[in-house]
Amino acid sequence: MMEEQHIASVFDRDLEAVQARIMKMGGLVEQAILEASEALEARDEELAEKVRRDDLAIDDLEALIQEECARIIALRAPTAGDLRIVLSIMKIAGNLERIGDYAKNMAKRTSVLVQMQPISGAHTALRRMAREVEGMLRDSLDAYIQRDATLAKDVIARDRDVDQMYNALFREFLTFMMEDPRNITACMHLHFIAKNTERMGDHVTSIAEQVVYLVTGETPDEMRVKGDKTSTDPSVAPDVPRSGDA
Amino acid sequence: MMEEQHIASVFDRDLEAVQARIMKMGGLVEQAILEASEALEARDEELAEKVRRDDLAIDDLEALIQEECARIIALRAPTAGDLRIVLSIMKIAGNLERIGDYAKNMAKRTSVLVQMQPISGAHTALRRMAREVEGMLRDSLDAYIQRDATLAKDVIARDRDVDQMYNALFREFLTFMMEDPRNITACMHLHFIAKNTERMGDHVTSIAEQVVYLVTGETPDEMRVKGDKTSTDPSVAPDVPRSGDA
Repeated sequence: MMEEQHIASVFDRDLEAVQARIMKMGGLVEQAILEASEALEARDEELAEKVRRDDLAIDDLEALIQEECARIIALRAPTAGDLRIVLSIMKIAGNLERIGDYAKNMAKRTSVLVQMQPISGAHTALRRMAREVEGMLRDSLDAYIQRDATLAKDVIARDRDVDQMYNALFREFLTFMMEDPRNITACMHLHFIAKNTERMGDHVTSIAEQVVYLVTGETPDEMRVKGDKTSTDPSVAPDVPRSGDA
Repeated sequence: MMEEQHIASVFDRDLEAVQARIMKMGGLVEQAILEASEALEARDEELAEKVRRDDLAIDDLEALIQEECARIIALRAPTAGDLRIVLSIMKIAGNLERIGDYAKNMAKRTSVLVQMQPISGAHTALRRMAREVEGMLRDSLDAYIQRDATLAKDVIARDRDVDQMYNALFREFLTFMMEDPRNITACMHLHFIAKNTERMGDHVTSIAEQVVYLVTGETPDEMRVKGDKTSTDPSVAPDVPRSGDA
């Protein structure tokens, strides 16, 4: 019994340490999203370059977290419930790393876009979309620490807004391209940025789904009303019903 | 000593079982790539629908493999070297799952593209690209089972060909769009398919990198000549040198 308590407390200390790293990683990713979208709107090449450099620290943190989680599993041989928590941390670290990559990609495209004629309004709309995703990420990490399934489900619901922002931008870019072929190259970049921001939202959603699963045991399929997010992308299936997606 | 041998052999049995699942998953993903590109070229909606359905089995296998790996780590408390192997399996399962998603996405876009005027030559070029990626995937999984770092490095090198195929298609689609705005929507879909196929190649490369790491201890940064693959994407940085990517 004493023994068990001892093991439990050691596991909890390990868990706190790695969860602190997840929070640090989350903070860096939030910063990357905001700075990347700010660099895009302000056509600020230096800030874009900084975002690209800073992504290395995010990648290093992910590798460190994966190693630590594996070490915890190996050393503590956690119970099923505790194992579920460690696995969720490994998944969340993976989601954060990918969101960071999308922010880096946005920064790369910015370095190219500054050489082109700006597309009026697009950068502001993209920044609004990025801000929404950053807010969802902050809430999903809070929900994780607080084990707050209600907040996590709220984040999952808000992803629909991001999908709608993307859909609106997609149609806007199509119009710009059809109006003037000289806009095509710039719009291709902006469309990729919009698409990648929408994907960031999908990864934030999967973090929130991890939280709901941890707290309630509900799996994503059970909690997700719609199917695969990509089916909400008009560039995939504007007229195909989501049900056709399962 | 006997004890150690016993534990080792139990670990090896577990490992063989989960590696068999990885091979099964790999086979399903190879099939998805080939069928998705065949459906695209033949404008075969039924085959595209089959690819979308079959992706569920791939997702289920991934979840199963992740659980089994966690169970192995928890029960066998493997040595550092064995732990590295189990972690590599978890990473490879994740890569395979994402490749399967891209194949599903290709199938979804096919269901939309069949309603549009075909873009001459594009589907054949895309299928060639998909075939190349499928071959790389097969070799990377063989390299994993054989612990063949040479074959794995060959796969990593071949990813440059896939990047070049993508770059060529990207410029082709731009031309089609500029020539006739009525091509824009179809070209946007085809461009996403090309981009996603190039991303499949990146995930195959990361599987091959896992193999090299397992066999030689070399990390991706050490073995990768170029930096982040996205920097080879002309839609990201046509004129930015790769060195500017680090």
